[in-house]
Amino acid sequence: MVRVVVLGQGYVASIFASGLEKIKSGELGYYGVPLANELPVKVEDVEIVGSYDVDSNKVGRDLYEVLRLYDRNAPESLRGIVIRKGVHLGSLRNLPLKAVGLDDEMTLSEAVERLVSEWKELRPDVFVNVCTTEAFVPFESREELENAISEDKRDRLTATQLYVYAAAKYAKEVGGAAFVNAIPTLIANDSVYVELARESNLVVFGDDGATGATPLTADILSHLAQRNRYVLDVAQFNIGGNQDFLALTDKERNKSKEFTKSSIVEDLLGYNAPHYIKPTGFLEPLDDKKFIAMHIEYISFNGAHDEIVVTGRINDSPALAGLLVDLVRLGKMAVDRREFGTVYDVNAFYMKNPGPREAKNIPRIIAHEKVRMWAGLKPRWL
Amino acid sequence: MVRVVVLGQGYVASIFASGLEKIKSGELGYYGVPLANELPVKVEDVEIVGSYDVDSNKVGRDLYEVLRLYDRNAPESLRGIVIRKGVHLGSLRNLPLKAVGLDDEMTLSEAVERLVSEWKELRPDVFVNVCTTEAFVPFESREELENAISEDKRDRLTATQLYVYAAAKYAKEVGGAAFVNAIPTLIANDSVYVELARESNLVVFGDDGATGATPLTADILSHLAQRNRYVLDVAQFNIGGNQDFLALTDKERNKSKEFTKSSIVEDLLGYNAPHYIKPTGFLEPLDDKKFIAMHIEYISFNGAHDEIVVTGRINDSPALAGLLVDLVRLGKMAVDRREFGTVYDVNAFYMKNPGPREAKNIPRIIAHEKVRMWAGLKPRWL
Amino acid sequence: MVRVVVLGQGYVASIFASGLEKIKSGELGYYGVPLANELPVKVEDVEIVGSYDVDSNKVGRDLYEVLRLYDRNAPESLRGIVIRKGVHLGSLRNLPLKAVGLDDEMTLSEAVERLVSEWKELRPDVFVNVCTTEAFVPFESREELENAISEDKRDRLTATQLYVYAAAKYAKEVGGAAFVNAIPTLIANDSVYVELARESNLVVFGDDGATGATPLTADILSHLAQRNRYVLDVAQFNIGGNQDFLALTDKERNKSKEFTKSSIVEDLLGYNAPHYIKPTGFLEPLDDKKFIAMHIEYISFNGAHDEIVVTGRINDSPALAGLLVDLVRLGKMAVDRREFGTVYDVNAFYMKNPGPREAKNIPRIIAHEKVRMWAGLKPRWL
Amino acid sequence: MVRVVVLGQGYVASIFASGLEKIKSGELGYYGVPLANELPVKVEDVEIVGSYDVDSNKVGRDLYEVLRLYDRNAPESLRGIVIRKGVHLGSLRNLPLKAVGLDDEMTLSEAVERLVSEWKELRPDVFVNVCTTEAFVPFESREELENAISEDKRDRLTATQLYVYAAAKYAKEVGGAAFVNAIPTLIANDSVYVELARESNLVVFGDDGATGATPLTADILSHLAQRNRYVLDVAQFNIGGNQDFLALTDKERNKSKEFTKSSIVEDLLGYNAPHYIKPTGFLEPLDDKKFIAMHIEYISFNGAHDEIVVTGRINDSPALAGLLVDLVRLGKMAVDRREFGTVYDVNAFYMKNPGPREAKNIPRIIAHEKVRMWAGLKPRWL
Repeated sequence: MVRVVVLGQGYVASIFASGLEKIKSGELGYYGVPLANELPVKVEDVEIVGSYDVDSNKVGRDLYEVLRLYDRNAPESLRGIVIRKGVHLGSLRNLPLKAVGLDDEMTLSEAVERLVSEWKELRPDVFVNVCTTEAFVPFESREELENAISEDKRDRLTATQLYVYAAAKYAKEVGGAAFVNAIPTLIANDSVYVELARESNLVVFGDDGATGATPLTADILSHLAQRNRYVLDVAQFNIGGNQDFLALTDKERNKSKEFTKSSIVEDLLGYNAPHYIKPTGFLEPLDDKKFIAMHIEYISFNGAHDEIVVTGRINDSPALAGLLVDLVRLGKMAVDRREFGTVYDVNAFYMKNPGPREAKNIPRIIAHEKVRMWAGLKPRWL
Repeated sequence: MVRVVVLGQGYVASIFASGLEKIKSGELGYYGVPLANELPVKVEDVEIVGSYDVDSNKVGRDLYEVLRLYDRNAPESLRGIVIRKGVHLGSLRNLPLKAVGLDDEMTLSEAVERLVSEWKELRPDVFVNVCTTEAFVPFESREELENAISEDKRDRLTATQLYVYAAAKYAKEVGGAAFVNAIPTLIANDSVYVELARESNLVVFGDDGATGATPLTADILSHLAQRNRYVLDVAQFNIGGNQDFLALTDKERNKSKEFTKSSIVEDLLGYNAPHYIKPTGFLEPLDDKKFIAMHIEYISFNGAHDEIVVTGRINDSPALAGLLVDLVRLGKMAVDRREFGTVYDVNAFYMKNPGPREAKNIPRIIAHEKVRMWAGLKPRWL
Repeated sequence: MVRVVVLGQGYVASIFASGLEKIKSGELGYYGVPLANELPVKVEDVEIVGSYDVDSNKVGRDLYEVLRLYDRNAPESLRGIVIRKGVHLGSLRNLPLKAVGLDDEMTLSEAVERLVSEWKELRPDVFVNVCTTEAFVPFESREELENAISEDKRDRLTATQLYVYAAAKYAKEVGGAAFVNAIPTLIANDSVYVELARESNLVVFGDDGATGATPLTADILSHLAQRNRYVLDVAQFNIGGNQDFLALTDKERNKSKEFTKSSIVEDLLGYNAPHYIKPTGFLEPLDDKKFIAMHIEYISFNGAHDEIVVTGRINDSPALAGLLVDLVRLGKMAVDRREFGTVYDVNAFYMKNPGPREAKNIPRIIAHEKVRMWAGLKPRWL
Repeated sequence: MVRVVVLGQGYVASIFASGLEKIKSGELGYYGVPLANELPVKVEDVEIVGSYDVDSNKVGRDLYEVLRLYDRNAPESLRGIVIRKGVHLGSLRNLPLKAVGLDDEMTLSEAVERLVSEWKELRPDVFVNVCTTEAFVPFESREELENAISEDKRDRLTATQLYVYAAAKYAKEVGGAAFVNAIPTLIANDSVYVELARESNLVVFGDDGATGATPLTADILSHLAQRNRYVLDVAQFNIGGNQDFLALTDKERNKSKEFTKSSIVEDLLGYNAPHYIKPTGFLEPLDDKKFIAMHIEYISFNGAHDEIVVTGRINDSPALAGLLVDLVRLGKMAVDRREFGTVYDVNAFYMKNPGPREAKNIPRIIAHEKVRMWAGLKPRWL
């Protein structure tokens, strides 16, 4: 069994929970789950045992009721789990929601203690972090991190940064756990956190789940690189109507996202082709199904100029939720193997910004074969 | 040195010749040549020593003059090579051109003798076949092939099928040669020809150079397959204004093309998603820069429906010409290594319909790594 | 009241019936009905009184049951109408359906009598023809038409051509009726039929309901023409999965469609820019929601080259069904005004191939204002 | 003859000058000039007599040399005109250029006097304003405007606002002139300026030349409105590499642009469909040929959901330059007819934000017919 605690019960977490139950009940196949049911840890073994949020409309409500906000066909089997109060540390700032958090009631150190104590009761194997995108600053040293918590510096920390710290404490006490960071906050790319994880029996996967246009862009750029075509420019727009896009209209948050997405161009092409790659706007009726548009111009043989345009409508949350079904199982496997710290072979396929920091993006098609091999599966085409 | 004889001095062969010379003179970089100058055989070592065609406007003319029909900036260095008369066997039927060929003047056996004798003078290492797309029927047995030639059955054979036969004879006599079949006629996928090649010290690479929308479609389908998304349907159109598209408006020829392109869907997805993939029409002003449009619809996690649309303007001939710069060098390497017959590791990346017959399509991004390894280069990302 | 008889109870007719009832019940607004409820004849006044088909699975069944094949939410209010047997005259040839028709049981003259006699009972004001696309040959003279029927020449006539003949007979007897020809068979563009209509108190609107990519292409070409941009080429593909697309894979039928769609380029630009505009293929999973792709290249000021690409997913049948809600009302108005023959001001907006024959395509945006004025409404922007 | 003075010798003005001369010399046809040579005032009658700029690299240089920066084939016939020093009032702020202007050397009142005195020498009939997009605030009253100048309030005024003031003064003195405002600064939409123009024998056309994606969006929205389709949302991106896009990365300027472009949705649909329409970014290699992408989602009949996507590569400056060839001639005609103030029938077709302020956007296809009629030409399709 893989016991999962979810941090941030929004669109992604709800589709994750809902789809997981439908697979278990045989209502849905394994579509959208990259490794389907090939892993030794089965999809049917995954169980959600706890969920945290900071939206005052969700905290204290039954998980089933919250799922129904995002999926009209949510399964009733998830009745009985009550959404617990997490920490927000300003993460809902500028959003049209009222935030409530442990941090409103106690110091950060006390909040960490409280979370660890709740988790020792819930006994999760894996944490899945799908909080709202945050404006964050990475840590430079362990000391800086420890001080921020002990001195209750609320402006220095984001919710994610606190959750990982608490998870590390928990993992150390219980002997092992995994933390899947599916949002842009740098964790698997922050050496302070990776080192903390390694010392604390914690596995961290991250950062920023590889969904949407970016992995596709990665494979198209790889396609061009392999033909030695010279990319003149890349423009990639995307616009959506879910809370993630709303949050990105907040300038500071957007900046972290931007940082994440841009390195793929240089990593894959070997030179920094001029590019404009960022979430572009918020348009409510698009809801969770974003519109993407991408334009790539390149030079082919004998100086010829070619152009490719990709557009699409892509459901944002299911794409990430499907990856999470793999990631929680891979997390459990990594804990069992005691591969604490972070695991590049997993991150390279599943993350937009695969940690550790010095690691590069590689074509996703190749990364897929690597993660299969890491997991003990036969490569598909190699 | 790699001595090259070109069969079919049309758009592709002309851009190949023109671009090659411009690279040699330093006027152009290696853009569009997948392996750039990494191979032990250098781009600068490639030399065109002969060229054949059957268009009455080209036979007997200087190569430079013909290049200028396709590339206003063709380099003068190719003056002095005279286009020789090849065989047509009806390959220009229904096209607005007057065909002249050795087959108008002599029997097929005599034509084979003539070609072999000319080649023994030109001493090519590699033949590059870029004839007009033909309506062909593969051979069932060596006997059937031998009979078709000895009994002068002109309706049974295409120009390509005759050229390969002659090339095998030549290779046997001189000790080794390579034949790059860049058009759809099945050669590397016809076991009669592969066996003939193996016995005759001939390397055949084929079939149908992997340019245009198809390799990109292959990588996008692989991208979806690796995320276990269920592809509902694939539509791919393309329309152009060069002679290749004009030829495809001829129904019979189109049929061979169609056969070639469709297997990728099943090979890469593992199931035969409904698809419509074929060259769609001829529109003269588009010239060599075709317009492509592709629509893919698939199911993601939790039953979500996504859609991707790719459109583009792509120069057809330079894309293939750039591949040829690698293929002639790889052909020479295969001859030197005496790997006669066909080489899947080369075909898998460079060909739409990679031989041998029983071989499947794999993601091009992975095929690229395989060909690098075959050629003794370090893989780029593995 | 407007009493309507439907000829061909397929996708379009079913969505028409279903949507109409939903508007009446207040379940839906007037979306997709160009003139909404502005006409003196109200949407609520339209009533379907009879329906004909030749699919053996439909004839004799209740309309409600047939609607449910196309619209899961079909309203029950249409229970009670039984699908009657029409004529097929080979119109289902090559389709995976068993055809049954009056023409299997009697001569064409007898079939005409039978239809007229049934209609005198049903008393329709307007016929709506949405049969499957047919391979047809227009008539050169009234005599040729009369002979074809009296001599029972089944190969000379299509179902539509017979239906209009019968409708004219009916209109003459009852004093007036209208026939809306929403398929490509030339009726409003065949002067034999227009003259017959005029003499028989019949209004014909036609031909080929203006849905899908073509009216949009028309307005985009008009947009370019008005800026005096020189269009170099136009490519327009579309692919779908409904029976209309399946029928078009039959070569002969496709030819009629092709003829229809191409004249807009010359009509709107004033010169015949090279173009490729035709339905491209059949891909079943697309169902009624076709995929369109269009590419236009033009010269702007100072010799600059621009390109526009339009792609889309468009529900085919609802688009036409919405137009029919206007057309049956306009048909009734034309009968009341005794404007027998055909009415260009109506056809120009609603039809791909607006009759009479000598009439040209104009920008749809302008045609819309004209039909408003014809109907006695204020123009919207003029 | 139409004597023209250009304000802002950038990309647009240079292509305007260059293309105009090429038409005169017979090298180019009238492509991209909406009314071609149908007007009583001929294209051949237009003459550029003066040009102003504030880029230190241009002021004092020969026009021909500046044209060559933008058009390698610029005609030599424009040698001899020297670029004069205009006013900048901060309009190049944040751009990588050094600005020099009359405002650096004298008060605003003196600058107005200087301009008027130079113009009385050059004797222009029409001014064409194609300055860099400015961050502006409209004027509330004549008094506020007069004070800003007399009290030398440089922060209150933009270059355009000063130029129009000077042009009005000039027009009053010489008996009539026209001012074509092709940039977003509100002039024809600012009643203070329209009234000033009317009193001063000045015609103003404006505001913001209707090029790029917006007029096309207008016609596509009109197309949907006329079919009563309910638009759910509209997203429109565009990205380019010319100075106009660079200027728009400056937030304040972008705000004015945004204001301009958004009203079309409500004007044409009759309701304010949620939309995101703004210039999205700067990507240098795209140069003057911007990439546009537009997504529209709407409800058709019976509740069906359709989607349209438009993408394109469009040369920005030639599109506007072609309109200017009409506008200067229409300006002269308006002066001759003494239609001082602003002319909606001209603005409605040529301007993104057609003045006067209370006027609305109408479909461009209809606006075109209106301007033809205003100019005394036969409508094309009405």
